[in-house]
Amino acid sequence: MGISWPKTKLTSLLGIDLPIIQAGMAGGSTTPELVAAVSNAGGLGTLGAGYMSPKAIREAIRRIRELTSRPFAVNLFIPGATKASDEQVQAVNRRLDRYRRELGIPTGITLELQTETFLDQLAVVLEERVHVFSFTFGIPEATQMNELKSTGIRVIGTATTVREAVLLEQAGVDAVVAQGSEAGGHRGTFAGSFDASQIGTMALVPQVVDHVSIPVIASGGIMDGRGIIASLFLGAAGVQMGTAFLTCSESGAHELHKLAILQATEEDTRLTRAFSGKPARGIVNRFMREMAPYDKDIPDYPAQNALTRDIRQAAGQQQRPEFMSMWAGQGVRLATTQSAGTLIQRWVQQVESLR
Amino acid sequence: MGISWPKTKLTSLLGIDLPIIQAGMAGGSTTPELVAAVSNAGGLGTLGAGYMSPKAIREAIRRIRELTSRPFAVNLFIPGATKASDEQVQAVNRRLDRYRRELGIPTGITLELQTETFLDQLAVVLEERVHVFSFTFGIPEATQMNELKSTGIRVIGTATTVREAVLLEQAGVDAVVAQGSEAGGHRGTFAGSFDASQIGTMALVPQVVDHVSIPVIASGGIMDGRGIIASLFLGAAGVQMGTAFLTCSESGAHELHKLAILQATEEDTRLTRAFSGKPARGIVNRFMREMAPYDKDIPDYPAQNALTRDIRQAAGQQQRPEFMSMWAGQGVRLATTQSAGTLIQRWVQQVESLR
Repeated sequence: MGISWPKTKLTSLLGIDLPIIQAGMAGGSTTPELVAAVSNAGGLGTLGAGYMSPKAIREAIRRIRELTSRPFAVNLFIPGATKASDEQVQAVNRRLDRYRRELGIPTGITLELQTETFLDQLAVVLEERVHVFSFTFGIPEATQMNELKSTGIRVIGTATTVREAVLLEQAGVDAVVAQGSEAGGHRGTFAGSFDASQIGTMALVPQVVDHVSIPVIASGGIMDGRGIIASLFLGAAGVQMGTAFLTCSESGAHELHKLAILQATEEDTRLTRAFSGKPARGIVNRFMREMAPYDKDIPDYPAQNALTRDIRQAAGQQQRPEFMSMWAGQGVRLATTQSAGTLIQRWVQQVESLR
Repeated sequence: MGISWPKTKLTSLLGIDLPIIQAGMAGGSTTPELVAAVSNAGGLGTLGAGYMSPKAIREAIRRIRELTSRPFAVNLFIPGATKASDEQVQAVNRRLDRYRRELGIPTGITLELQTETFLDQLAVVLEERVHVFSFTFGIPEATQMNELKSTGIRVIGTATTVREAVLLEQAGVDAVVAQGSEAGGHRGTFAGSFDASQIGTMALVPQVVDHVSIPVIASGGIMDGRGIIASLFLGAAGVQMGTAFLTCSESGAHELHKLAILQATEEDTRLTRAFSGKPARGIVNRFMREMAPYDKDIPDYPAQNALTRDIRQAAGQQQRPEFMSMWAGQGVRLATTQSAGTLIQRWVQQVESLR
């Protein structure tokens, strides 16, 4: 028996019934309603708080707690060194001005990096004693890890290679997400090059499993019961699913983003640095296509992310999908619309009929 | 029960015991000994005959038949339109001359495309009434498909997207390989762009399964019993494995190629057009690195393949891995050395202990 559905090391660790984690997608899709629905269904909902202010994170946590008494996670971005010269910022800003004009919003903006620092965001996670803290883009400092652990918070890191998984285990995480190249949204890569870290889930999961002793959570291209059971047989202790939850009724993703996912095929996503300066997988649109030739001129995250914020916001308000970041994984044909609870129930039934 | 190990639609169709196909890797690794060992173990061995002369194919088939009475396959490349201008060929040839000088072989060679045409190769497959014919890079013409089928030969095509799988089913293939982006060697892509067709196995297989009614064979990143059982639960009827067989004792791969696979990590492979003009995944070496900046100047397959043939041959003779095409998939850490029969037995035991 490869699967013992009730109680595994991972589900005991996280205090959940099903080894199904909803990915901590930043940008508004992980509403308190979605997070709570996933947790209430027995999985682990995750607030994607990378772009949120400490105040907004605290409010969301409290709202989630009104909606569920079960464990959930908060996901943050680990800050890293950013390389963005003034010249680079000015050059890309001039290029972005043409889109600002098209959207009728002010041009010639100056770079304003997000003022909420990771430290302030993390303070809320600690103060609120959130059950699970998950992160991507790096590793928290040792003092932060110690504080999280001594507060009793479970910690999940994100790896895109075996090497990253080993570094995370050494840093003391309780479990590690193995993010395959199929995954939508940002690549979690923090050690090694992005080019070298596009490993498909089928290849990545067993190799990571063989090199760490903590539970491994498979992610990337997993969209239904077939992907869940396949991941468990690859040696994963559970799965993390993002795109599959983006089109849920509780998801806060823009309606045109949801529509694009529902209409897309597996050929329609691509990695891009155009929106944030960090490679992320989304449905190809005009902005991605037009920025692609200038990829080398795009400043690193978080500079590019700050520079495109007004464009993305205006695109959302004006219903202009050609300028939205429509993150999605390669399993888009399997996306469906219903409540997260119904979706999870269906997967469980599918797994039980297959095994 | 997701798996009924003995007798499935696929194994009945191909006349084999185990739904395990050894990939038809061209370039000398699929010796008659390897093909026969896989077939004798209950799987389907495949002669990778894409680069072989009709005479050599016939001799290999006869040798395989001395070694096994069981079904095996011959794999060929479907010819396609090639775009290679004289200027392009001359420019890349000048660049290649620096490597020729380093290897001490003649420079300034002229482009000589392989004289053995697909038609002549296919004629041998038909005359020899090989049990299974598999192919990549396209679809045979309708008359060829008819001749294969009326001869009683089973036909397997290669798809990298749902669209390609549907085209292959419409053309009448008996089964289709869904080649995920993890796979080593050449991408089978023939409809749509290479960029759009890098779909990870975890995402590709269930989407293909949902859109065709013929058996789907998963490939890409599958290296052991875990990958086999995971693929079957994704809905595949069987698996095709290449890299896992490359390091076998019966494999004809260059010893330095085998060594490179055994020492590689999942971060060490990359797609390149440098060797053949068609994207293929291999272990990064000096030739791939140095040619990467000039990718757009590389003529299409088969021109580039013909232009680098002398370099690859000399590199093999002179034990210079920096100029060899060392194809490998992303599962390299799971590669092991033993006979193909032992390997297959081990996978079967692994699958049976897991399910």
